[in-house]
Amino acid sequence: MNDATSWRELFVATDPPGLAVLAHAAEVAVGSLHQPTPGPRSPLTPAQLRAGVRELEVCPSEGVALDQVLGELGGSVWAHGVRPLDVACVAHLHPPSVVSAVVSELTIASTNQSMDSWDQAPVATEVELHLMDFLAARLGFPSSASGVMTSGGTASNLLGLTLARSLTASRIGVDVLKTGLPPEAHAWRFLASDQAHFSIQRAAAQLGLGRDAVVTIATDDKGAMDLTDLDATLVRLDTEGLRPIVIVATAGTTDLGAIDPVADVARRARAVGAWFHVDAAVAGAFVMSDSLCARLDGIAAADSVTVDFHKLWWQPFNASALVVRDAERFDLLRVPSNYLDRGDELEGMVNLVGRSLDTSRRFDAAKVVASLRTIGQRTFATMLEHLVELTQYAAAAIDANPAFDLVAPVSAVTCVFDAPGHTSEDLRRVQQDLLADGSMVLGRTRIKGRAALKFTFMNPLATNADVDELLAIIKGRLTR
Amino acid sequence: MNDATSWRELFVATDPPGLAVLAHAAEVAVGSLHQPTPGPRSPLTPAQLRAGVRELEVCPSEGVALDQVLGELGGSVWAHGVRPLDVACVAHLHPPSVVSAVVSELTIASTNQSMDSWDQAPVATEVELHLMDFLAARLGFPSSASGVMTSGGTASNLLGLTLARSLTASRIGVDVLKTGLPPEAHAWRFLASDQAHFSIQRAAAQLGLGRDAVVTIATDDKGAMDLTDLDATLVRLDTEGLRPIVIVATAGTTDLGAIDPVADVARRARAVGAWFHVDAAVAGAFVMSDSLCARLDGIAAADSVTVDFHKLWWQPFNASALVVRDAERFDLLRVPSNYLDRGDELEGMVNLVGRSLDTSRRFDAAKVVASLRTIGQRTFATMLEHLVELTQYAAAAIDANPAFDLVAPVSAVTCVFDAPGHTSEDLRRVQQDLLADGSMVLGRTRIKGRAALKFTFMNPLATNADVDELLAIIKGRLTR
Repeated sequence: MNDATSWRELFVATDPPGLAVLAHAAEVAVGSLHQPTPGPRSPLTPAQLRAGVRELEVCPSEGVALDQVLGELGGSVWAHGVRPLDVACVAHLHPPSVVSAVVSELTIASTNQSMDSWDQAPVATEVELHLMDFLAARLGFPSSASGVMTSGGTASNLLGLTLARSLTASRIGVDVLKTGLPPEAHAWRFLASDQAHFSIQRAAAQLGLGRDAVVTIATDDKGAMDLTDLDATLVRLDTEGLRPIVIVATAGTTDLGAIDPVADVARRARAVGAWFHVDAAVAGAFVMSDSLCARLDGIAAADSVTVDFHKLWWQPFNASALVVRDAERFDLLRVPSNYLDRGDELEGMVNLVGRSLDTSRRFDAAKVVASLRTIGQRTFATMLEHLVELTQYAAAAIDANPAFDLVAPVSAVTCVFDAPGHTSEDLRRVQQDLLADGSMVLGRTRIKGRAALKFTFMNPLATNADVDELLAIIKGRLTR
Repeated sequence: MNDATSWRELFVATDPPGLAVLAHAAEVAVGSLHQPTPGPRSPLTPAQLRAGVRELEVCPSEGVALDQVLGELGGSVWAHGVRPLDVACVAHLHPPSVVSAVVSELTIASTNQSMDSWDQAPVATEVELHLMDFLAARLGFPSSASGVMTSGGTASNLLGLTLARSLTASRIGVDVLKTGLPPEAHAWRFLASDQAHFSIQRAAAQLGLGRDAVVTIATDDKGAMDLTDLDATLVRLDTEGLRPIVIVATAGTTDLGAIDPVADVARRARAVGAWFHVDAAVAGAFVMSDSLCARLDGIAAADSVTVDFHKLWWQPFNASALVVRDAERFDLLRVPSNYLDRGDELEGMVNLVGRSLDTSRRFDAAKVVASLRTIGQRTFATMLEHLVELTQYAAAAIDANPAFDLVAPVSAVTCVFDAPGHTSEDLRRVQQDLLADGSMVLGRTRIKGRAALKFTFMNPLATNADVDELLAIIKGRLTR
């Protein structure tokens, strides 16, 4: 039985009646986002949130009208989320979204292209390649470069390191994807700073090398890789018969925003024949600013670069990219498939599954292109520079305030600090209390064994006065 | 400088002026989807599509008005995509989207929760867990079960097999994520049918075991795993000192929709102490139908199950889940992080990063819940049953038509056939010509070395008459 009359309204159709249904539903959905109360989150407890959510039956036997469902989600869910646009939402690299990207999500989902094969994404494939070329050019790469979108920096890093593992194996005649890790792999090492993202270790774990295969390099006061220690480590590994197959430079560490000396690390990677990967998930956006991009000098020497659009490009999750200097490196990944990437298509039909660790994959490139065209380079750069300046202001304000100690100089949009005379338990309590009562979503971490609080500034609408107020609130809580 | 006046409109705000901006943009975005011409895709060539896309400057120095950008994308991009709701779009497991999910994408992106930590997704975490509990219950799992959303079946399969690898290693006292693959890993094997998805081989490749570690089991005429060959293989592996650490049953193969005899495979996995993974990316939706769910009998014996919401649940990409029978298995994944999952949060604050191979992760559970509540179980089941019946109709029509040969009996929503008297090159030409001129997006694959065409029915609005017409078109092209 095909009950077309009642089913038709369930699906997105692009004829006028279908678009009228979609337009109405979109209007109701937008209305469901109205937040009557200010603040970075509602003060409900985990137990209260759980109880509210559990009242919603996931799938009743008869469907509920969409307008009602959207209203229910508005009341039970959207009202109680974290609000990244609130100036007191400063815990994570968790951006407010731009309108251009959000409404593009509606079109992405409506048209539902899948990036794995050309016949599921003919024009979408071209848009993704166009965006990757734009990003590659901004990074200073030659025209041989290209990239692919992934679901996040963790996935981008894994993809880059997967390519590196395959290349290393191929040089000793091993197809690691086919026959597995050779005995030589016990000597393979990834080098990354002790401030690198944990996804580097996770990648080593996934790839069968284990986290212990990541050799950490000491960092300086700012959290950037110490070249002396890198050199000493390279000598030590050589002595021990261990082989640095990848050196990772981080451009924008998670806690301190530190940018490793990319050009210097690049030279060492080349000297030892290691793959050079730059994790620029955080600071990759600096390529958009004439004043900030110099901090990434040398990045064009990388074999692969991770850039997260869902961080300082203000895109909703997920949107990340891995760019490689030589697009032919993606050939290292190729897995035969009978139904995708058959290799006998017409001229120009590119199947991006050949570049990806995913199969079905959404067309996230569309929202990034829509946003960059809408924002424009000048405004984009100015907003980014404002966030960097705001972070510097916060650091100066902390430095000038006897209640706080800056743990390290700031480099990008994060600022880590503690409070003299207070224990790590005091810091934990303050951060948790602020989260619990909904007055601030504040970061908390450990830097070189020392507990600390953290601001992450992702919202260009925030001002110096907002920073002052956040500090006053924290100070008030500490002395309670 | 903080140019708040001009920047404010760029970001999604949930106060009335902000929502007015969003509502207007959403209306324009919906309008940009209007398709003046029918058909499953536009007939533009790859070169023409590329030229159109390359005319759009990704990031001009000054931004372009959003309404204009959305209009440009409508003309250059959305007009030229593939249209999964068209009845002639039958190549892949590529569904038309439901309105409820699409407008939920707007709210997901607006609020931009990130599923890695509770303080980025307090209520969203509860919604995802609620949905996972619903799915686990439908699969027949005990209350110990839970799950996590992933970006696709490939990622879900990788996660399941990652857990299996860790558990296997832990039983010989090895923390594989920390110290890498032990020497014993050379004997580890994944067993899956020769019709299993290539992501099983890809997972073995990622995990360092190599594709060769996947031992394929023969399949019967329907494409389901042959138990005799499975038994013989288990004996052979034992003789050779090889160890089956995972047995994968596929519930809904990509080409034939075949469902392996799940309960029988489960018993063998238990007998040899192997992890039992069910890749139900395709047929997982059968749990929603009282008449179809029996085909999955035995699935509750699985250690892990992959279900793709972005297939027969009509969700836009991406939305998949891995459900495990024992949620404590996720402890096998844990990676220490200073800034996430610190383990000293308040009661009830769950950080889902501990279950995931991703870090930042979008709140896809919201769209699934909104859709299931809107559709309701009865309508959902009826639409699914209609697709299975439609596929049976197609098989019968092919069987009755001397121009075609059914390659294998149908099991779910795919139907594979060829044309007697025609070469594999003829089939290729017809499929490519139909794609090129925009009259049909038809599947093409190889079954046991034999080239074939493929229908995949994902659109419940399609009718038997539509199937007849598709077959007539193909027949006409073959005899040209």
